[in-house]
Amino acid sequence: MSNPSLLILPGDGIGPEVMAEVRKIIDWYGAKRDLAFDVSEDLVGGAAYDAHGTPLHEDTMARAQGVDAVLLGAVGGPKYDNLDFSVKPERGLLRLRKEMDLFANLRPAQCFDALADFSSLKKDVVAGLDIMIVRELTSGIYFGEPRGIIEEGNERVGINTQRYTESEIDRVARSAFELARKRGNKVCSMEKANVMESGILWREVVQKVHDEDYADVELSHMYADAGAMQLCRWPKQFDVIVTDNLFGDLLSDAAAMLTGSLGMLPSASLGAPMANGRPKALYEPVHGSAPDIAGQGKANPIACILSFAMALRYSFDRGDEATRLEKAVETVLADGLRTADLLGEEGATPVSTGEMGDAIVAAL
Amino acid sequence: MSNPSLLILPGDGIGPEVMAEVRKIIDWYGAKRDLAFDVSEDLVGGAAYDAHGTPLHEDTMARAQGVDAVLLGAVGGPKYDNLDFSVKPERGLLRLRKEMDLFANLRPAQCFDALADFSSLKKDVVAGLDIMIVRELTSGIYFGEPRGIIEEGNERVGINTQRYTESEIDRVARSAFELARKRGNKVCSMEKANVMESGILWREVVQKVHDEDYADVELSHMYADAGAMQLCRWPKQFDVIVTDNLFGDLLSDAAAMLTGSLGMLPSASLGAPMANGRPKALYEPVHGSAPDIAGQGKANPIACILSFAMALRYSFDRGDEATRLEKAVETVLADGLRTADLLGEEGATPVSTGEMGDAIVAAL
Ligand SMILES: CC(C)[C@H](C(=O)O)[C@@H](O)C(=O)O
Ligand SMILES: CC(C)[C@H](C(=O)O)[C@@H](O)C(=O)O
Repeated sequence: MSNPSLLILPGDGIGPEVMAEVRKIIDWYGAKRDLAFDVSEDLVGGAAYDAHGTPLHEDTMARAQGVDAVLLGAVGGPKYDNLDFSVKPERGLLRLRKEMDLFANLRPAQCFDALADFSSLKKDVVAGLDIMIVRELTSGIYFGEPRGIIEEGNERVGINTQRYTESEIDRVARSAFELARKRGNKVCSMEKANVMESGILWREVVQKVHDEDYADVELSHMYADAGAMQLCRWPKQFDVIVTDNLFGDLLSDAAAMLTGSLGMLPSASLGAPMANGRPKALYEPVHGSAPDIAGQGKANPIACILSFAMALRYSFDRGDEATRLEKAVETVLADGLRTADLLGEEGATPVSTGEMGDAIVAAL
Repeated sequence: MSNPSLLILPGDGIGPEVMAEVRKIIDWYGAKRDLAFDVSEDLVGGAAYDAHGTPLHEDTMARAQGVDAVLLGAVGGPKYDNLDFSVKPERGLLRLRKEMDLFANLRPAQCFDALADFSSLKKDVVAGLDIMIVRELTSGIYFGEPRGIIEEGNERVGINTQRYTESEIDRVARSAFELARKRGNKVCSMEKANVMESGILWREVVQKVHDEDYADVELSHMYADAGAMQLCRWPKQFDVIVTDNLFGDLLSDAAAMLTGSLGMLPSASLGAPMANGRPKALYEPVHGSAPDIAGQGKANPIACILSFAMALRYSFDRGDEATRLEKAVETVLADGLRTADLLGEEGATPVSTGEMGDAIVAAL
């Protein structure tokens, strides 16, 4: 049997630096755990635009469709701010999500014990926090038509369309309920059903999926504005949150920041099972490309490394090895090793991006 | 000259209770400061539905158009959860906003010194916080057409449309810049221009208004997800935030919660100047109808009272009297008076809704 295949897309800004550390981890698994991957690498985002004039080359798209999992660093940067909308770095990422049909974006918001002091929230509000946001990723206002800027009368009008079909809501709701069963068995669904018809349909379908197939899971519904409030007030009330593409974008970023562990948080974007039974999958850190610190050895590689841990768990069914890697990360943190984003405490040992990667390999 | 006119719409849940306290304040101004108002009262939301089968009667709409300012309590409650979308309590409020063309929703997020401990954020992150969120209130996905739930193939599709014209963006941007000039002279505009064309137009128009007429104000742009993060991380970096209807809904609720003063925060919704020079205006607390505590004397009337202070400032050009009322609120807080939502500290004196209102009148 051939090795499972990984496509690595480092992207822009700190993407290449943090991905270099992930490669050390991958190499370790190949050498020491008999878990070798066929790794290929390609361009995405601004880097692809610079090389090919497009943020995602057709060949790269085809390759992504063919591998067992994609690992992505980050896309975007001020250099590309004035590019036409259609070739912005973000379009490369959005096209990957859409064409691979990665409808379920899993974003854990977890507070690492060693870092609880880093949150802007009080320690008792965040210590031990562990929630999972499931964001719909291939529909909603990100992709709905009609869209664009049109002329009307003598002025321009900017238009985007939120569209959700029953089956789009159904499948992401199922992902959330399945996850909840392996965790705290609680799902909170968020929309604006008091204002948007798409929210009404969302609420109705989530409730139906629950009643028909997941009645054992505790389900609640919350308006997204109240959800934003409650995340800030007492995030530990939540276990799994399921929400649409746009609300998920804001709510998961807020939740990530609340944990104080932004540089630490991974994500998985999953689609339907492929012929080999593995889901289509793309893994990426929640943080962005951080162009201001790129190339300085300041970036924290942990979010990207933990994204690879998610790949071990969700793509390769190696929860045991994922846990090993997560434990190694906890060990280096407990030892006081800190990249620049996490400095501030007394007694911490400042390390570079590369030193952090090496330390995690050593802890493995 | 006749007295300025006020229409009071207490609405649902705790709305009537907190509004009763505002009436004490209004009466005090009539008796003691020679600032009498012609006050009328009417129904909105669930209360209007119970009486008339509609969340806003035509007569009430007409009256709202005719007065100098509207004061609203809150709308909604579980009793109305299963009503048809078109007659939900929220539709009454949304219709008022739309037909009065109240395009600029001013939501101060302010941390009261006496209450800094109530925030889930660390004290140094929120103490002294004073930001103003200007939310577009009459357009965007709240009102765009087409909308609804349609049949397509053999399933239903929920649809809403985000639509912003240049002039809609232009006028709310001007409101934000004008406000900034009276405050910290800084505006941050938030959208998702990396994903939505309506966000591209938003950014472009805000920049143009700035460059042409408000170049003295410091302007920055931020993606709304990063904005949600930054609000949680270090809210004091902001002065005025301007954003669209939907982002404003989430971001202002999160910001309000961060201050720890949710029961304290007022809002003003302003439109174009009327013949008498006053803007069309509706004032309401940021908090909702809180049906769980309605009728128990537990509600905090301060947000609604401070909404009246905003009316004094923005509708009646009496910044002096607004400040007097705000000072009176600070005095009772400094004296340790606390409604149920603010209990927890040592040495606080628990008071009912009515006692809080009386104390503020006494402090005036
Ligand atoms: C980069 C951008 C297109 C993206 C999004 O808006 O989805 C990012 O914010 C995210 O959350 O992954
Ligand atoms: C009650 C509801 C319609 C309203 C909104 O979504 O605008 C509320 O959340 C608000 O922010 O004023």
